[in-house]
Amino acid sequence: MTELLKIEEAISRILKEDSILLLCHKNPDGDTLGSAAALYHALCALGKQTAVLCADPIPSMYRYMQIEVFRQQFEPQFIVAVDVASIQLFGDAISEYTQHVDLCIDHHSSNSGYAYGTLLDSTAAATAELMYELIPMLGVEITPLIADCLYTGLSTDTGCFRFSNTTAHTHQVAAGLMELGARVEELNEILFESKSKGRMAAERMALDSLEYYYEDRCALIVLTKEQIAESGVAPSELEGMTGLPRMIEGVEVGITIRQQPSGSYKISVRTTRGVDACAIARRLGGGGHTRAAGCELEGTLENAKAAIVAEAGRELARTGEKAEQS
Amino acid sequence: MTELLKIEEAISRILKEDSILLLCHKNPDGDTLGSAAALYHALCALGKQTAVLCADPIPSMYRYMQIEVFRQQFEPQFIVAVDVASIQLFGDAISEYTQHVDLCIDHHSSNSGYAYGTLLDSTAAATAELMYELIPMLGVEITPLIADCLYTGLSTDTGCFRFSNTTAHTHQVAAGLMELGARVEELNEILFESKSKGRMAAERMALDSLEYYYEDRCALIVLTKEQIAESGVAPSELEGMTGLPRMIEGVEVGITIRQQPSGSYKISVRTTRGVDACAIARRLGGGGHTRAAGCELEGTLENAKAAIVAEAGRELARTGEKAEQS
Repeated sequence: MTELLKIEEAISRILKEDSILLLCHKNPDGDTLGSAAALYHALCALGKQTAVLCADPIPSMYRYMQIEVFRQQFEPQFIVAVDVASIQLFGDAISEYTQHVDLCIDHHSSNSGYAYGTLLDSTAAATAELMYELIPMLGVEITPLIADCLYTGLSTDTGCFRFSNTTAHTHQVAAGLMELGARVEELNEILFESKSKGRMAAERMALDSLEYYYEDRCALIVLTKEQIAESGVAPSELEGMTGLPRMIEGVEVGITIRQQPSGSYKISVRTTRGVDACAIARRLGGGGHTRAAGCELEGTLENAKAAIVAEAGRELARTGEKAEQS
Repeated sequence: MTELLKIEEAISRILKEDSILLLCHKNPDGDTLGSAAALYHALCALGKQTAVLCADPIPSMYRYMQIEVFRQQFEPQFIVAVDVASIQLFGDAISEYTQHVDLCIDHHSSNSGYAYGTLLDSTAAATAELMYELIPMLGVEITPLIADCLYTGLSTDTGCFRFSNTTAHTHQVAAGLMELGARVEELNEILFESKSKGRMAAERMALDSLEYYYEDRCALIVLTKEQIAESGVAPSELEGMTGLPRMIEGVEVGITIRQQPSGSYKISVRTTRGVDACAIARRLGGGGHTRAAGCELEGTLENAKAAIVAEAGRELARTGEKAEQS
């Protein structure tokens, strides 16, 4: 079992050490990188040896964070995981360093407690929100560069202040980071107004396949494995496209069918309030949350489509009845 | 000339009156409607006769604001314009009420001073930011409904806290509104995660036409008048699509060509930092800003395309040289 730490205890453990390795989760996002980068710059300011290690390459869009990647430059005395909820999320490539994590700083309520000590704030929208409190307590001023890193974590984990994890405190931290010099306009352009050529090509193909059902209450897009390969879209970008059909005005069930390399069909279901995505996916052997769920079907595309559309129709009929009764 | 008012003076003028008509600008957006709705609810709480008038219908997505539309229910003693920078922006349909505006509450630095008195804060990202200060000074508590209206103005005018007008104060106001009960998750879904069927159809057609030039530093989309008619996309939604080609990673000049009903080609140019959109448009008789400009060309689509692509190439060559020199 991990020891749950107060922020003062986490601070004193960090301050005692001279060479500190910072670990991010695989498929790194803005929060794991931004929070690690902010801590990296703070530790540098304290004169400590430090660097950041991640199983996957750091996407080039984040180069403004000026992260120094760990390449065995030093022998780390102390290992800190940043925004990593469980040991599986490190990725095998860095397993040499993930067996004995001294400190984990995180905001996921699902944190498995794999580190010796854990600083957890599950009310924080992002680990960056927690880091915003921690860095000044280390005795380091938040520079404009550190503010950029923390703003990145905060804005990416909240979908630029749109997701339900956004709190009044999140906005207060954003205000503080702007006052400390975060270059919000430039960052937002990099973080939220940029799509790859592959993503654009995949969106074109998906929109070409767009079909409506049940008086436009259900919309469906399909990408075959050949199209996915031809477009060059990255898996993480494909994931981001599953919200597309549900965004259409009036659509209550948005369905995305992506053919897997094996040939099977991975189906994502996204719904509006009051329509149960999980109920739709569960009847086909899948599961998930109320508004985002999924399942995987073998066989032909026609059969997969017919099955999921039928289940969506059943759920829409049920919610229609409920609405009539109330 | 208008009299520039302090907030206390504006407050005392409002409090003196019993029947107050609130005017919005035509093609109403989230800020003119949200700010007017917030003031409407505040004036109702004070027991005043009030209603909101706009030359165009209020889009149904804003129905949660519970705005009462003015239908000559009363004889207004006092007329307040909200978020309207000049008299032309009212629209002719309501000209009966726009000749003698008693008070204008606005945040546009371009405000022409058409009202007898003007309360102007050009540092505010949205009129809603100013209204957040004004309503408590009227002696009215900001209810969750008023908070919803003000959050709408704040978030829509800042592109959900992404645009360059966003300040630390904007985030502080957002934090305050969340504490007062703004239903941020529901609102963001309505305001930012919704596209019409027509917009989706137009995006599909536009992406089908996507072409790259100059080693993908320039991207171009085209919509013919027949496609625009077939898609059913609204003019305001088309305007929102002009950012699309520039969003592609690596693209420095994004060009959108929309054929007008007359047959001519309206060209929008959007650029990344350091590439002058206005220089590109100006050589073809157009103009605009450094990063967003436009022009209109007669003749064939092939000629229009060739002309704008050539100008984009000239500007890209120029910035390439500049980069080499520096």
